[in-house]
Amino acid sequence: MNLSEFSIQALQQAIQRGDLSAREVAQHSLQGIKRQRAINAWTEITTERMLREADAIDAQRRRGEDLPPLAGVPYAVKNLFDVADHTTLAGAALFQDRPAATQDAWAVSRLSRAGALLSGMLNMDAYAYGFTTENSHFGATRNPHDMTRVAGGSSGGSAAAVAAGLAHFSLGTDTNGSIRVPASLCGIFGLKPTFGRLSRSGSHPFVASLDHIGPFARRVEDLALVYDMLQGHDPQDAFQANRPADPAQLGLEERGQRCALLGGFFSTWCDDDARDALAQAARALDIQDEVTLPEAELARSAAFILTACEGGNHYLPALRASPERFEPASRERLLAGAMLPAAWYVQAQRFRRHFQQQVLPLFSRFDVLIAPATPCAAPLIGQETIAVNGTHLPTRASMGMLTQPISFLGLPVCSVPLATKSGLPIGLQLIAAPFNEAAALRVAFALEQQGITSLGKPNEQ
Amino acid sequence: MNLSEFSIQALQQAIQRGDLSAREVAQHSLQGIKRQRAINAWTEITTERMLREADAIDAQRRRGEDLPPLAGVPYAVKNLFDVADHTTLAGAALFQDRPAATQDAWAVSRLSRAGALLSGMLNMDAYAYGFTTENSHFGATRNPHDMTRVAGGSSGGSAAAVAAGLAHFSLGTDTNGSIRVPASLCGIFGLKPTFGRLSRSGSHPFVASLDHIGPFARRVEDLALVYDMLQGHDPQDAFQANRPADPAQLGLEERGQRCALLGGFFSTWCDDDARDALAQAARALDIQDEVTLPEAELARSAAFILTACEGGNHYLPALRASPERFEPASRERLLAGAMLPAAWYVQAQRFRRHFQQQVLPLFSRFDVLIAPATPCAAPLIGQETIAVNGTHLPTRASMGMLTQPISFLGLPVCSVPLATKSGLPIGLQLIAAPFNEAAALRVAFALEQQGITSLGKPNEQ
Repeated sequence: MNLSEFSIQALQQAIQRGDLSAREVAQHSLQGIKRQRAINAWTEITTERMLREADAIDAQRRRGEDLPPLAGVPYAVKNLFDVADHTTLAGAALFQDRPAATQDAWAVSRLSRAGALLSGMLNMDAYAYGFTTENSHFGATRNPHDMTRVAGGSSGGSAAAVAAGLAHFSLGTDTNGSIRVPASLCGIFGLKPTFGRLSRSGSHPFVASLDHIGPFARRVEDLALVYDMLQGHDPQDAFQANRPADPAQLGLEERGQRCALLGGFFSTWCDDDARDALAQAARALDIQDEVTLPEAELARSAAFILTACEGGNHYLPALRASPERFEPASRERLLAGAMLPAAWYVQAQRFRRHFQQQVLPLFSRFDVLIAPATPCAAPLIGQETIAVNGTHLPTRASMGMLTQPISFLGLPVCSVPLATKSGLPIGLQLIAAPFNEAAALRVAFALEQQGITSLGKPNEQ
Repeated sequence: MNLSEFSIQALQQAIQRGDLSAREVAQHSLQGIKRQRAINAWTEITTERMLREADAIDAQRRRGEDLPPLAGVPYAVKNLFDVADHTTLAGAALFQDRPAATQDAWAVSRLSRAGALLSGMLNMDAYAYGFTTENSHFGATRNPHDMTRVAGGSSGGSAAAVAAGLAHFSLGTDTNGSIRVPASLCGIFGLKPTFGRLSRSGSHPFVASLDHIGPFARRVEDLALVYDMLQGHDPQDAFQANRPADPAQLGLEERGQRCALLGGFFSTWCDDDARDALAQAARALDIQDEVTLPEAELARSAAFILTACEGGNHYLPALRASPERFEPASRERLLAGAMLPAAWYVQAQRFRRHFQQQVLPLFSRFDVLIAPATPCAAPLIGQETIAVNGTHLPTRASMGMLTQPISFLGLPVCSVPLATKSGLPIGLQLIAAPFNEAAALRVAFALEQQGITSLGKPNEQ
């Protein structure tokens, strides 16, 4: 039985019909996670909860009830989402002594209510500050396509779990690219919704001005369905835009989205694999237009400043109290961030509004803008530099260079996986206007239907 | 003829009927401004424009047209609003060489379209950074109630002009109290609307996170009418909340607003004059309840940090290029603000959301909260300290101590003038829930109707 060949809807229907029990699905899923322990995606496995949730679904079915949309569907979450009775780690040893969460994060409670089965918590870069999930405490998460390579980060465990077929979907967060980078390197679909669209309540914060939550999946329809389950207003989240839910899954087949490629910065800072992927999509969608975002490089710098300042502010009390407990790779940059002059931070926020005003008018001409999600496919674990545009760039800081300017704008992005010549996957960003997640998902669906996207064949499947 | 005895509506109707021509009103107004030059409220008089606007109104009347709501009504604006063909000074010699504005500020263009007659631009603290309008370049604006006393600031010219009966209304801006403080010291009504309610386009910025524009007037109905003329969406203003206009003037007579006094910080840091004024209002409105805003003092500190950091950021390029051209009283504090650590700024913004979440639930029990607008009535020009709560406080920084926590929250406030025993006026803040300007204006109207408010008898009227 290969559960990952079922779509979410097919799996839910099989359980509803009684072809499979939720308990069988849960047990199969837990066995797979243990068998593929070498990927190092899970930091904690919630066996007891998963079986309890499965049994509740099976009991519902026995009572003849209609099952909810995610009934019996296995998933897992980045270890910065609160899960009741477990300590939220945010990838950091610093938090090991914290008390357990008293309730689920808002997003987790929505998924629970929709019938999904939680298998556990997933590895990440400490504090969500990184693009490779080489975690000094929990070890590196390995890329299911090549176990010597990184899974990307910071939601690396979330992407690897889904790419390996060990969960139907997962939750991650994206501040500067932390959903799109691992989706690209692991060859799956990822959605970073509009800034403010989904509640972040109960997720450990990093940069309040930039943090987003979002799902990973192996199919566009699954991604859209999970996204739909996550929509809704949460009065506890001061940053959430109070928007009515806008079901994305229903309209996936609608056609006629106007697309353009992003040139300039986005076509300069990527390698031939990324360019080939872009060309494939352009041919499939018959795209003639290319546009540039002027000042994209400045946007990246401004995003770095917001990240350093807000991250630094967030961790300053802990840095003062116990600097020795910090992830060594992050201690100094968090401290430096806290000491940047306020004038820089204010300027970065001012530039953000200016940049939005420059970019938003493009969406009167196009529904979706397309750019690579990463400059290249997955680097090796421990690889210090990547070669892009004739330059050696530091791996950890540079994997997000094409995602940062877009999340800085707060735009919704669907990351779609394509195959490269080497066999490793690479992702494209489908970028839409604020609150128009549906347009990005529709173009992703069109590419998937045309067979352009590819999940590849992860090892040991 | 004492024009200030006419309400705006009465004046407009007199002109509509032909009892007065707009040109007569303009000429009378210009003569008054010249006669009372000693108040030093105007930094520039726009004689030509005022007469041209008056002639256009008179021509409209001669053609038998219905005149717009502010037709023939004299007003003036703080010299940080753009007025076409004039250089916007923001109270600072630094800007004297700037080119003239090419168009009116959004608010000025709305008032023009409503038929009002612009007599000129009004004195202020340089950069809007101060509470006394002791401007080192243009001199101090004098309080019409006592020419040896300050008018308050930073919109001191705007308040003095209206208090002296030289304009029916004026425009000011309020970052930390710059409408409410001079309204209090000059004994007139002032409205600081909800943060984001009115467009700031074409007004010289100081602190983007805190700046508001708003009107001054001698009657609540005038204040509400001008406020109504200023409502409306401006797509150019990135900070404006896109709210439908909500006519305040129509519902002034509605009763039944639930009121409470603000105790704690607000009743501690004021003198007997302020406490007497509060007691008068409490008796008139039969107020039984007192509530406290916990952490009001922290809110004031956080407002100072936002002000220093954003002000510092705004002026940093000019401070680098020509520090010698800065107002001596502000150069060092602007420079210091630009160098504050970003972690402080971020913390102040985080505290702002926290404080809003603490305070907003009060408005489920009360429509309007009442506190003094200033710790005391107008100090002398040049007076270095004020005595409040047994403590000597620096005058310039402390006149806004009761207004700062409220604008930090972004709440709408109507400042109403009451008489003190000494004969000098003092203002009370009527504070309402976000976008509920009407509630504050209704309570102001009720106090005015009961004869509790008092414009006093400015000198030389």
